[in-house]
Amino acid sequence: MTKIAIAGALGRMGTTIGRIVDESPDMHLVGGIDIKDGSLFGAEVVTSDRIDAFLQETRPDVLIDFTIAHAAVENIKAAARNNVALVVGTTGFTPEQRAEIEDAIAGTVPAVISTNFSIGVNIFWQIVREAARLLGDYDIEVTEAHHRYKKDAPSGTAKTILEILDQEVGKREKAYGREGMGERKDEIGVHVIRGGDIVGDHSVLFAGNFECVELSHRAYDRAVFAQGAVRAAGWVAGRDPGIYSMKDVLGI
Amino acid sequence: MTKIAIAGALGRMGTTIGRIVDESPDMHLVGGIDIKDGSLFGAEVVTSDRIDAFLQETRPDVLIDFTIAHAAVENIKAAARNNVALVVGTTGFTPEQRAEIEDAIAGTVPAVISTNFSIGVNIFWQIVREAARLLGDYDIEVTEAHHRYKKDAPSGTAKTILEILDQEVGKREKAYGREGMGERKDEIGVHVIRGGDIVGDHSVLFAGNFECVELSHRAYDRAVFAQGAVRAAGWVAGRDPGIYSMKDVLGI
Amino acid sequence: MTKIAIAGALGRMGTTIGRIVDESPDMHLVGGIDIKDGSLFGAEVVTSDRIDAFLQETRPDVLIDFTIAHAAVENIKAAARNNVALVVGTTGFTPEQRAEIEDAIAGTVPAVISTNFSIGVNIFWQIVREAARLLGDYDIEVTEAHHRYKKDAPSGTAKTILEILDQEVGKREKAYGREGMGERKDEIGVHVIRGGDIVGDHSVLFAGNFECVELSHRAYDRAVFAQGAVRAAGWVAGRDPGIYSMKDVLGI
Amino acid sequence: MTKIAIAGALGRMGTTIGRIVDESPDMHLVGGIDIKDGSLFGAEVVTSDRIDAFLQETRPDVLIDFTIAHAAVENIKAAARNNVALVVGTTGFTPEQRAEIEDAIAGTVPAVISTNFSIGVNIFWQIVREAARLLGDYDIEVTEAHHRYKKDAPSGTAKTILEILDQEVGKREKAYGREGMGERKDEIGVHVIRGGDIVGDHSVLFAGNFECVELSHRAYDRAVFAQGAVRAAGWVAGRDPGIYSMKDVLGI
Repeated sequence: MTKIAIAGALGRMGTTIGRIVDESPDMHLVGGIDIKDGSLFGAEVVTSDRIDAFLQETRPDVLIDFTIAHAAVENIKAAARNNVALVVGTTGFTPEQRAEIEDAIAGTVPAVISTNFSIGVNIFWQIVREAARLLGDYDIEVTEAHHRYKKDAPSGTAKTILEILDQEVGKREKAYGREGMGERKDEIGVHVIRGGDIVGDHSVLFAGNFECVELSHRAYDRAVFAQGAVRAAGWVAGRDPGIYSMKDVLGI
Repeated sequence: MTKIAIAGALGRMGTTIGRIVDESPDMHLVGGIDIKDGSLFGAEVVTSDRIDAFLQETRPDVLIDFTIAHAAVENIKAAARNNVALVVGTTGFTPEQRAEIEDAIAGTVPAVISTNFSIGVNIFWQIVREAARLLGDYDIEVTEAHHRYKKDAPSGTAKTILEILDQEVGKREKAYGREGMGERKDEIGVHVIRGGDIVGDHSVLFAGNFECVELSHRAYDRAVFAQGAVRAAGWVAGRDPGIYSMKDVLGI
Repeated sequence: MTKIAIAGALGRMGTTIGRIVDESPDMHLVGGIDIKDGSLFGAEVVTSDRIDAFLQETRPDVLIDFTIAHAAVENIKAAARNNVALVVGTTGFTPEQRAEIEDAIAGTVPAVISTNFSIGVNIFWQIVREAARLLGDYDIEVTEAHHRYKKDAPSGTAKTILEILDQEVGKREKAYGREGMGERKDEIGVHVIRGGDIVGDHSVLFAGNFECVELSHRAYDRAVFAQGAVRAAGWVAGRDPGIYSMKDVLGI
Repeated sequence: MTKIAIAGALGRMGTTIGRIVDESPDMHLVGGIDIKDGSLFGAEVVTSDRIDAFLQETRPDVLIDFTIAHAAVENIKAAARNNVALVVGTTGFTPEQRAEIEDAIAGTVPAVISTNFSIGVNIFWQIVREAARLLGDYDIEVTEAHHRYKKDAPSGTAKTILEILDQEVGKREKAYGREGMGERKDEIGVHVIRGGDIVGDHSVLFAGNFECVELSHRAYDRAVFAQGAVRAAGWVAGRDPGIYSMKDVLGI
């Protein structure tokens, strides 16, 4: 039985994670913290300023953090000094914050940190890497689609795809849109579709000599991200201190 | 038996059109003009400066023109004064050239003028129009893909799609690429994929409330454009003078 | 303010419909019936045997019914004798039940009856009809994909697509799978994909001479069906007695 | 400079291969054999019964064979006894013929034998293998699309995909079409689309928990198969005797 606490417990992701933990026979939700107090599936949610007392009373094995950067840094430090393993899905850390996190974790607790906890996306990244290795001389175009309210373009997941491509085929310029005259250069086209309620589609097109290979991932429900975080929590409890990726969790 | 002449007979489109005419049991290739002389499927090709003599000697029912704007204007005038019907696939006319063409044709000969002679694309445009009429309150995104050497972005076919959307859903801003922060406005995203040998794909996505409708057209071979031009030639011979579109040819 | 009652109020669709009505500023949920009593967004749910008293006390403008065939027949009769308009999403009526329903409604109340209340699917059917009319000589293949637990193949929505195609291009044989040797006949291929949690994808491929047109619809959330039913409820209140389709509701 | 001879030189594949060799700066077309004599890009084509004399006179480094099974067996034996490396794209060998070929080649010449020489398809197979390894617990569905005249279903390429899946995820039943009632079993759905002039599309869908990964390959022109054969020819010349696959050629 893995005991789980959630930082950002009353938010969208926190609530979804809470439900999944609540439904998992081998997990137990001991409570959460957020900017206000409340309750989540019968467990108490307290304000963040009481995090140390909260961790000492509820004794979670893992703290799952989906908050915002500056709050997450404090939560991570508190988890580290209370010997609680971490799953961190918060994004947008500055390099300084990132360093602070690494310092806090080093030699103290195990932590899985990722920008996308969907199991399928993490495997998809791996497949994209393999394809890029094999199809490096093809023209590559990346397309992603999300709901109309998504604010950042391209998505973090697409950015990771671009990093993988850079690693495998060499750094190429990115073309974030094309209009007017001019031939395609040695570049990667990046296409950002926004509309409706699209949960999250990503595709990588490798266009070659009279043939194309296309790899695509589609999410149908934001629950996939929560499920991956919970799986990471089950995996990270009891590991050696250090920072792990979802790749480690999935063994791929 | 419809007698066909080709302007731009030795070019890529001219040759393909010549082959299709040559294989059509109810058509006869009487010859062509181009910037140099030569032959095409046994028919003589003469230089453009001899176009009047050529038309008077070979007496085609239809001249199919796939050349460049300034040459096409001269060919169209010659066809008009020699009473030869026209199929014009040449693009890039200035408004002045367009007016010159309309003057030459008015009251003299029938002419089918289109930026895309593919039968499927023309029907596709019609379906897009119907969908836009019905789904006007959905978010709309247009994506097109062509081979890496295509110089203009977006394609002429995509531009026509955008015109149709403007007519049916009201004029919206176009977003030719998205990068950075910011929410989707009341706009149409336009995505231009370039790579490999892709012949020509176009898709229109209507993204709504938890559901999407997508319409797409794919060309497998540039011959589709030639086939449509030849079909237009068979249709236009003997019509009343005036400018027709592929919509008229197809009766849609 | 349209007053809504729900039959099958505690079921999956009933609950979703209740939530949407509750969130609609111009609608009011007056209560519901089901096989057991309970409550739904603050409104009372009573057992079906008390339907007449329920309708007389709560005085809904519209009863939305997502139950099962034999229960729906009784609910529809009760609505008719209490002068309450109807939205019926229940399926699987026998011809006798269908006749009973038509008798009950005739001259008494307006009713929208459909097998799919998704607005997008209804518009999609209309677009498919238009495309089939224009592309009748193309080879047509229908593909649908649903979650692994779906029991019927092909889906009801796909069956409606096939009916539309039969009406527009003439009745063709259906090929529900191909294996072994043999050329394609004058048939429509029907492909049923089952896997994961796919909510519902439908596509119609028109494959012609070197080009293809493909139309597709994707649902991301079953809420689309509830939303369409609520929209139908807003439309049907106050109409003349008679049976209407979603096509009437959408004015397409 | 690799010297190439073609068996089946006047056929569709032979001609395409001849053109590609002719355009390759580091290759030289020395001639071909076929059931009748003729010429191909300036090189002489002689009848198959003169193959030994032909090979001794023209001294090719590699014989590329796209013929039919019984003819290919004779050509392969001749190449082996004349010390000419082989690229064999002919299919449909009986087990006896296959054994005869292996005997002829063993210890004498290097030979690349494959059912699909498209570079993209061979890489695609490899990517599918990697994905199947990582996504073995997802529901898998295979879809392929070809032109209306293709006689076998599913395609040879799809059969190879199914073999790869069997190897990676364990042997599952195949469902070649679904109609009627019944839930999905532990099976792989195989969907065969036939229509128009589709050159060859293959896709593998992995459908999981609220997310899907799809891998697809599309051929735009049958020339891809010829190009791969020519690449294999460039690779095989000078290798150690033995049978190689396209995987060896591509180093994947």
